[in-house]
Amino acid sequence: MVTSNGTARPVTLRDVARLAGVSVATASKALNGQPQVKAETRSRVMEAAAQLSFSPNTLAQALIGGRTGTVGLLTSDLEGRFSIPILMGAEDAFGSDQISVFLCDARGDAIREKHHLRALLSRRVDGLIVVGARPDSRPSLGRDLGVPVVYAYSPSDDPEDLSLVTDNEAAGRLAVDHLISCGRTRIAHITGDPSYGAAQDRARGARSRLTEAGLPLAGDQVWFGMWSEAWGRGATRMLLRKDPSVDAVFAGSDEIARGVLDVLHQEGLDVPSRVAVIGFDNWEVLAANARPPLSTIDMQLEELGRRAAQRLFAAIDGNPASGTETLPCRLITRESTAPLG
Amino acid sequence: MVTSNGTARPVTLRDVARLAGVSVATASKALNGQPQVKAETRSRVMEAAAQLSFSPNTLAQALIGGRTGTVGLLTSDLEGRFSIPILMGAEDAFGSDQISVFLCDARGDAIREKHHLRALLSRRVDGLIVVGARPDSRPSLGRDLGVPVVYAYSPSDDPEDLSLVTDNEAAGRLAVDHLISCGRTRIAHITGDPSYGAAQDRARGARSRLTEAGLPLAGDQVWFGMWSEAWGRGATRMLLRKDPSVDAVFAGSDEIARGVLDVLHQEGLDVPSRVAVIGFDNWEVLAANARPPLSTIDMQLEELGRRAAQRLFAAIDGNPASGTETLPCRLITRESTAPLG
Repeated sequence: MVTSNGTARPVTLRDVARLAGVSVATASKALNGQPQVKAETRSRVMEAAAQLSFSPNTLAQALIGGRTGTVGLLTSDLEGRFSIPILMGAEDAFGSDQISVFLCDARGDAIREKHHLRALLSRRVDGLIVVGARPDSRPSLGRDLGVPVVYAYSPSDDPEDLSLVTDNEAAGRLAVDHLISCGRTRIAHITGDPSYGAAQDRARGARSRLTEAGLPLAGDQVWFGMWSEAWGRGATRMLLRKDPSVDAVFAGSDEIARGVLDVLHQEGLDVPSRVAVIGFDNWEVLAANARPPLSTIDMQLEELGRRAAQRLFAAIDGNPASGTETLPCRLITRESTAPLG
Repeated sequence: MVTSNGTARPVTLRDVARLAGVSVATASKALNGQPQVKAETRSRVMEAAAQLSFSPNTLAQALIGGRTGTVGLLTSDLEGRFSIPILMGAEDAFGSDQISVFLCDARGDAIREKHHLRALLSRRVDGLIVVGARPDSRPSLGRDLGVPVVYAYSPSDDPEDLSLVTDNEAAGRLAVDHLISCGRTRIAHITGDPSYGAAQDRARGARSRLTEAGLPLAGDQVWFGMWSEAWGRGATRMLLRKDPSVDAVFAGSDEIARGVLDVLHQEGLDVPSRVAVIGFDNWEVLAANARPPLSTIDMQLEELGRRAAQRLFAAIDGNPASGTETLPCRLITRESTAPLG
C-alpha cells in the first residue's frame, strides 16, 4: 500500500505469497476464488492478505474478468431521501460481499456531475445508476461512456437509455381508490409544486379514478402549491372554507399530509371518522409517527434500486435494455384512513 | 475504455495524442495541468480526450502525484441524515472540482464495512472519513491501512486515531441557557434512548446549567425514552401530570420536540407564551415547518465535514493528528421560544 508520504511501498501479491508460503500463481488463484486451490491453502493466503492489508489489484482483475465489482451511483438528490433507499435496494440485489456501490452527490450541478462521472469512470466502475432529485426527465449522459447506465427515479431524456420510474398516475388512482373503498364521496387533493411531472401525474390518476366512480373532486380544484407542511396547513384552511363537507384528503406527500392533519385537529374534525387522510412517500419518520399514524403510498424505492441493479447487471453481461420501465407503488394503510362508521 | 462485452479496448493516452496531433508526452502534460503546454494545445488535447471519453489513468497519476483525488466516506448511518451534511461539508472543503467523495454505506454491519473498505482501498482512495450511526465510540479501523482516516460524529475507540465530535454537553448547556434567558424557571428535559452517550451528555449539560442558575429540573427527572415523536407526546403527558407548572421544555431531538408541541396544543397550552420549546438537530423539514417554527440546536455537521476534510488533507500531506476534537453546536432561534411577556 502506498502511504501518503511515500515511505512504504505497496504490498504486492508477491508479499502475500511469501508470507503464506505459496507461489504467486497459487496466491492469485486463491484470492480470485478459483476452484483448483485447496481450502487449507486458500485460508492461509486469505490470512496473509488480511495480515498485510493487501488490496488485490482490482484493475488487473478487471482486465481479466471484465468487471471490477464496483458500481457508481450518481445522485442529485440533495437530501438523500430518495437515493438512499435506492442505494440500499441496489446493494441488496448486487450482494453486499460482491459489489460495492460508490455514491457520489452532484447536487444538481452539471459541472460537479461531470467531475464525479470522470472520477467514477477512472476507477473503472462496471456501471452506473443515475438517480435524479425529482421524478422528471433529465439529460442523458450519452451512450459512449464505455459502461452501461441505468436511470432510476428521474428518467433520461434519451428513449434509447434504460430508465426505471415510478408509476405516479397509477399511484394517484390507488390512493383515491382506497378512499372510495372507505366509503368517502367528498375527496379533495392537496399536492405540491405543479412544475413536477409527478405532481401532475398523481393528480391525473386521482381525477380519472374519481370520474370513473362518478364522484366530484371536493373543492372543485387540485390544490397545487409546495411540498411542505406549511402548504398542507394553508391549503386545508382554504379547502374547508370552500367545501366544508369534504370527508377525505389525498395529500401529494407525507409532509403535506402532516399539515392537513394539523389543521383538521385545530378545527376539531376527527381523523379518520370525520375526514380520512392519505399521504404519499411512506416517509416513516413523518408517516408512522403522525397522530393518527398516516396511511400513505410507498414508491417502493428499494425495489426500484433492486431492479436497477438487476438491469445494470444484465447490461454488464452484454444484455442491455432500453426504454422506460414503470414500477407500481404500494398502498400502506395505517389509522388515518378507515371505512365510514 | 473496456466495454461490458469486451468488444472495445480501453482508450489510451496514445489515442488521445494521435487525435490531437501531439506527442504522448505533450498530451500527458496537458491533461495533468502542467504549465509548459500552450493553451491552444491544451484545449486541443482536452477536446480529443472528451471526444474519446478518455479517463486518464488515475492510478498512474496517483503513483506520481502521491494522491488520486478521491476520498472515501464510509458511513453506518442508515438514513443518511447525519452523513449527508457531513459529506457535503467535506466536498465543499475539498473543492468539488478537485476531489470526489465516494460514499459507501455499511449499515452498521462489520462484514459489509470490511468489504467496502477493501473496495475503497483497492481504488486507491487518498484517505477515509468514517461516519458512525450514533455519536458513541466505534471500533478503530486500525492504523495500517496505508491511508489516513478521520472519524467524524462517532469517535474511534483508539485515542491515537483522530476523531471529530460534537460537544453535546456544551449543547445541553446552550439550550438551557437560552431558555433561562427567556425568563423560564420551570424547565424540563425530555430526551431519547439513554444508552446513547449523546443523550447522557446533553442531559448532563442541561442539569449543570440549571444548577448554576439555582433552578430545579421541572418534573424532577430527565425523561429518557426513545428518539420519536410518539415518545415526545407520551413524556409530555406524564410531565404535565407530574408538574403542571412547567414553562419550558428542552427536547433531545426535533422529533421529540414535535411530539411535545402536539400535546401542548392538545392541552391548550400556548407555545411559546405559556411553554417555550427547544429541540435538537435543526432537522429543517421538522423544525422549520413546525407550528410554531421550532427553535433548536444545530450540530453544524457541514462544518464537521469541512473540518474532517481539512484534517484528512493535512494527514495526506504528511501532517497527521490524533486525539478527539470537539466542535461547538449553534443555537437556532425560531418562534417556539421567546421571552416571557
